Amino acid sequence: MTGEYVSMAHGAGGSAMDALIKRYMLKHFAGSSAEVPLEALDDAAVIDGIVLKSDSYTVKPLFFPGGDIGRMAVAGTVNDMSVLGAEPLALATGFVFEEGFPLHDLERILTSMDETCKEAGVAVITGDTKVVEHGALDKFIINSSGVGRRSPLLDRNLTEVRKFRESEAKWLLDSNIRAGDQIILSGAVADHGIAVLSAREGYGFETKIQSDAAPLNHMIARALEVGGVVSMKDPTRGGLANLLNEWSEKSKVGILIHEERIPVHTGVRAACEMLGLDPLEVGNEGKVVLAVVSQKAEQVLAALRSTDLGREAEIIGRATDEFNLVAVQTSVGGRRILAKPFGDPVPRIC
Amino acid sequence: MTGEYVSMAHGAGGSAMDALIKRYMLKHFAGSSAEVPLEALDDAAVIDGIVLKSDSYTVKPLFFPGGDIGRMAVAGTVNDMSVLGAEPLALATGFVFEEGFPLHDLERILTSMDETCKEAGVAVITGDTKVVEHGALDKFIINSSGVGRRSPLLDRNLTEVRKFRESEAKWLLDSNIRAGDQIILSGAVADHGIAVLSAREGYGFETKIQSDAAPLNHMIARALEVGGVVSMKDPTRGGLANLLNEWSEKSKVGILIHEERIPVHTGVRAACEMLGLDPLEVGNEGKVVLAVVSQKAEQVLAALRSTDLGREAEIIGRATDEFNLVAVQTSVGGRRILAKPFGDPVPRIC
Repeated sequence: MTGEYVSMAHGAGGSAMDALIKRYMLKHFAGSSAEVPLEALDDAAVIDGIVLKSDSYTVKPLFFPGGDIGRMAVAGTVNDMSVLGAEPLALATGFVFEEGFPLHDLERILTSMDETCKEAGVAVITGDTKVVEHGALDKFIINSSGVGRRSPLLDRNLTEVRKFRESEAKWLLDSNIRAGDQIILSGAVADHGIAVLSAREGYGFETKIQSDAAPLNHMIARALEVGGVVSMKDPTRGGLANLLNEWSEKSKVGILIHEERIPVHTGVRAACEMLGLDPLEVGNEGKVVLAVVSQKAEQVLAALRSTDLGREAEIIGRATDEFNLVAVQTSVGGRRILAKPFGDPVPRIC
Repeated sequence: MTGEYVSMAHGAGGSAMDALIKRYMLKHFAGSSAEVPLEALDDAAVIDGIVLKSDSYTVKPLFFPGGDIGRMAVAGTVNDMSVLGAEPLALATGFVFEEGFPLHDLERILTSMDETCKEAGVAVITGDTKVVEHGALDKFIINSSGVGRRSPLLDRNLTEVRKFRESEAKWLLDSNIRAGDQIILSGAVADHGIAVLSAREGYGFETKIQSDAAPLNHMIARALEVGGVVSMKDPTRGGLANLLNEWSEKSKVGILIHEERIPVHTGVRAACEMLGLDPLEVGNEGKVVLAVVSQKAEQVLAALRSTDLGREAEIIGRATDEFNLVAVQTSVGGRRILAKPFGDPVPRIC
């Protein structure tokens, strides 16, 4: 632990946050009887057939090109349940306002949440409102929690997996991946982090770079219909680099990805170069990464590409037992290790 | 709505918060297919047999006599599910830290949450951690969300209700109360609000006044075992005055309570007099109010008094069709209207 105080990196989704969670949260809360418990440190938990997820959103600014805190809150919770193999049922929202927060901004946020709920097909069914005095909060925080049920498509998907190998998997956990599985990314990375950073700092990139924040449950359903998906995860804080390292650690496999196959929009690439950021470490809010049995990978890719949100999907690499870390095959022919980032290079993007 | 901005009263559990929720949240989120939907504005929601609850905690200070933000977060979520007739299953926690938050304070809070979870018999199974920069938050906010199932004792309890009257009630909703039902309070009011206020302002009352924050699910189970409970609610923000007015409005009945039967600890009464506060408007975190068919009221009272947390329980009044508001029979013999408070007189107590 770096020092005796919480630092920005402790909330940024990389190795610093890992350490905080393992040394503090797991010490007190591990050991429940949940089917997918806290210590799995997966995207959501499962108990008694109920999928449960909770996320707080502190993005700054609240409104940015392509989205806002409300859209993120709905989409993020929907996505984290969906990538486990759940069908999202309903959301609970906790709003904390700084005194003086403009009601017309609340109206904008609620309108956006409502629209995003309709896109995803979920409803906000309960909530809580708190207000703190001026100066005690930077404007507004949303917590979005959600419950879901096992998707009817999940069993069908797992049946396809078992046509090609033995598997005891009940959910699409981070620990399910085996050597040979193909890694599919549903679209271009780093749009969200760069859009938020640009809106905050006024770099001006925001004229062409939009956040990708979107609920992915319908796109994910198309992939599960094809079947053969062994794991799914959304590359939020810490980006693709953090996600692939989580998978490699938990599944105890190496992952080799090909740099030139990873979609990065031109403007985002230019912004990252200018700012010295690795697009693989920047957070996304509307992408999913899928590990798929190799025999089904092309079909899953085609299903993703047939959707609006997945039309830029690519097979970016594979799991391997040749090594036990994450490696990137660079476009000039060499290989480099893709380490787990210490945190997300862009703070407060979600 | 008072002005174009969020004010402290909008988060204080009274009529100002009501207006905010009705004019903004319900406008966008009402109309789901939930069994107990958002627009019921009850303690928790129910969808597809799953009870869902979410609360954010912004109490200041984080530690106070008798409790801390962690104990409140666990107990509050457990209680809001329990008063609907649910058995709490599991919690999800969302932590938001101000950069620089001391890790030893986190350790104290987690220890307290762990202990409170054990008291209640629930587990934290998932969570989220965010950090905002120094100055963007007054130290720390917890969101606690929870899922529960219908308590097996609820059907037994409702069977007892139906021995004495026809009832279609499936859950212990605010709208279930009928004229003649007895109103039981599980113990003394205003301890929590005064303990927190005193710890914050340094009045010195805290040497003898302790917060009542506690999980009430086991005590509630004793009452459901007896049966005949038609509604339950915990008098948090806005206190007993807000609770009784919610019941009166939603059940369309009058409620008459007897001032001298409402337990208020001596020190709390003195503090309220000194500060000009009505103890009936001050928030609690470890009390429950029950509306019970009159034939079962004495038995439910005895069951509550047999528990440690309910030993000071009293029948404080009854629902009536003689009028349609909340009235207090004062100790000197007159009657006064107990109005719905605009907000809680003590800000940031939860």
